[in-house]
Amino acid sequence: MTPQRINELLTVYRDGLLNDTLPFWIKHCVDREYGGFMFALDRDGTVIDTDKGIWQQGRFTWLLSTLYNTVEPRAEWLELAKHGIDFIRKHGFDADGRMFFQVTREGRPVRKRRYIFSETFATIALAAYSKATGDKQAQQEALDLFKLIIRYLTTPGLIPPKFNPETRAGKALAIPMILIVTAQILREAVDDPTLCNEWINRCIAEIERDFMKPEFKAVLETVGPNGEFIDHFDGRMMCPGHAIEAAWFTLHEAKLRNNDPHLLKIGTTILDWMWTWGWDQEYGGIIYYRDAKGLPVQEYWHDMKFWWPQNEAIIATLLAYQMTGDEKYAQWHQQIHDWAYTYFPDPEYGEWYGYLHRDGRISVPLKGNMWKGPFHLPRMQWYCWKLLEEMAV
Amino acid sequence: MTPQRINELLTVYRDGLLNDTLPFWIKHCVDREYGGFMFALDRDGTVIDTDKGIWQQGRFTWLLSTLYNTVEPRAEWLELAKHGIDFIRKHGFDADGRMFFQVTREGRPVRKRRYIFSETFATIALAAYSKATGDKQAQQEALDLFKLIIRYLTTPGLIPPKFNPETRAGKALAIPMILIVTAQILREAVDDPTLCNEWINRCIAEIERDFMKPEFKAVLETVGPNGEFIDHFDGRMMCPGHAIEAAWFTLHEAKLRNNDPHLLKIGTTILDWMWTWGWDQEYGGIIYYRDAKGLPVQEYWHDMKFWWPQNEAIIATLLAYQMTGDEKYAQWHQQIHDWAYTYFPDPEYGEWYGYLHRDGRISVPLKGNMWKGPFHLPRMQWYCWKLLEEMAV
Repeated sequence: MTPQRINELLTVYRDGLLNDTLPFWIKHCVDREYGGFMFALDRDGTVIDTDKGIWQQGRFTWLLSTLYNTVEPRAEWLELAKHGIDFIRKHGFDADGRMFFQVTREGRPVRKRRYIFSETFATIALAAYSKATGDKQAQQEALDLFKLIIRYLTTPGLIPPKFNPETRAGKALAIPMILIVTAQILREAVDDPTLCNEWINRCIAEIERDFMKPEFKAVLETVGPNGEFIDHFDGRMMCPGHAIEAAWFTLHEAKLRNNDPHLLKIGTTILDWMWTWGWDQEYGGIIYYRDAKGLPVQEYWHDMKFWWPQNEAIIATLLAYQMTGDEKYAQWHQQIHDWAYTYFPDPEYGEWYGYLHRDGRISVPLKGNMWKGPFHLPRMQWYCWKLLEEMAV
Repeated sequence: MTPQRINELLTVYRDGLLNDTLPFWIKHCVDREYGGFMFALDRDGTVIDTDKGIWQQGRFTWLLSTLYNTVEPRAEWLELAKHGIDFIRKHGFDADGRMFFQVTREGRPVRKRRYIFSETFATIALAAYSKATGDKQAQQEALDLFKLIIRYLTTPGLIPPKFNPETRAGKALAIPMILIVTAQILREAVDDPTLCNEWINRCIAEIERDFMKPEFKAVLETVGPNGEFIDHFDGRMMCPGHAIEAAWFTLHEAKLRNNDPHLLKIGTTILDWMWTWGWDQEYGGIIYYRDAKGLPVQEYWHDMKFWWPQNEAIIATLLAYQMTGDEKYAQWHQQIHDWAYTYFPDPEYGEWYGYLHRDGRISVPLKGNMWKGPFHLPRMQWYCWKLLEEMAV
């Protein structure tokens, strides 16, 4: 990668974040009346559903705090992070300490789900916010919430299983994947890294042992309790964007550990495998689902191009290139960067579309909903900008 | 519609049913080893998932029994219907009398869901089978199961709500819609029609009062307990295929009641409204979801063309034409018939694809899964064939 290319990309990501993505959300999503943020925005930023997704409250709060911690201490970012923390503290939690998935504009609970993702995103919000402010209470809340997540995940019966565990016991890649990044962010905010290191090691080892399948050169989404291959629709399914996300969390950890060769190998192997499954040779971009045996996928929208797998692949390829110097990754990065920037940005109203058809045509023009908010895109812009700053030195 | 067109269509539906759809399923889905049927079939009929969906066990058993009752008493159809009933009786039920959603090939439970659709499809299977055989036990089982469904639907708390009823109380069109057809089929098999008539009346009245919205010229999928409009993603969503299915159930009831003008008006109004929302002016076919305010739909695959909305629209337009003589319906029938027969049939291996992109390209080539089986397509072929027989007289 030439110094010129590095500079060009750095500008694209930095300016995209500071002059497009952030202003779009800050202008449209902040609820000054009831607190928190409304993320269900139409193409032009109009609120089309006032319900508040708890995932996104945590994610945006994490982003704002992180920018404050790593870019510059802008008062606006900290004020908005506090705005998010206040809403999460006031309206995010049920009486049992677990969190809701969706609340009304006023903060009254609409839906609670069995999964622990609201909790992981609140953990990173509280952790990054405590680092920004020195707020010891937020630090303790983040740690307590992480421990609650661990307790729920490791205590049989606390999370009711979706499938009968006697006939179809299984576990999802999503869990170790999200725990790695949650522990990585929490570790930056707490005094003792032991617990976080322990869980990062444990989760990477679990992915390597149970989810990586050399016989398919693939990372599966769902396996049996001991990594057994489940030869049904769900067990054969791969989500390349998801696995590639796990790849860069692992690469990031390798980098923090002085380019630990074993972690580096795991990260690049996952990326190599899942790039091959995920990159659409015909239309470009990372496809949503594939079947490890090449059979039809049950999810009929399997071939769509969502924004976030592209974001994850842009980070993963750039990080792999920085760490290995292998030109293959620079080439992949250029492919996915160019494809994504051709189809996803909305030149008229800003930000990215989220949901494209396989060939890049827009399916739904909205900018945000319960799943899409200021997270994957700005995280990519921020992470790649900072990577390229290192590479430009 | 000319007599020649009537004869042509009659042949298409009858021969499609008897020489294509039925042989495809009978050849590939019958499990002689463990009983019941395996419906997860690839394009060529290969089983790609051995799990058994309980919905489809009931639906195919209903179809086979109904063909035996209305087409001719073929021993093969009755034998296969018994094969389905045996599996349903042996493996379909949990200890509480409710039914599973998905079981293993051997019949061990994989998944149970809160909704009552497994039960409604088993009800119509048992009812039609009892009519075919005179099996009084099956007749009683069908009636008992219908009463269990009613008890679950009308007893607060028995079915845990997905959303918090204090903040987002709602009810789904699917419930009155499925109860109408379930009661219609059960009524043919039981001695006293009172209970079934009562529920048919109640459900059609509920759809008219609470789900039909003249201000949008639309039937909504989800409304508040008293028909309140819920101005969120879910509350604005329409599924034209679903509403059109309810339309022809209502028209069918009107026909049985000597062309009852009020029911006829409800059925044609729903069809008129939802054809307008559903018919894709650009590519043809019935689109999956629309938003009543024209805002983006949250389901990103909203513009796909599934097989079953086309099946329902083919029935509804033909039945409306027969009952009203309005040429508009003959025209719509021709439009949807021609579009569906252009894109859905698989000339090489038979049957229809289920999941097409908006423009008719295939998304997933499989022929069956937990939701697609021998039901909507053969029901359309059978119902339209019989209608056209009446019209040919």
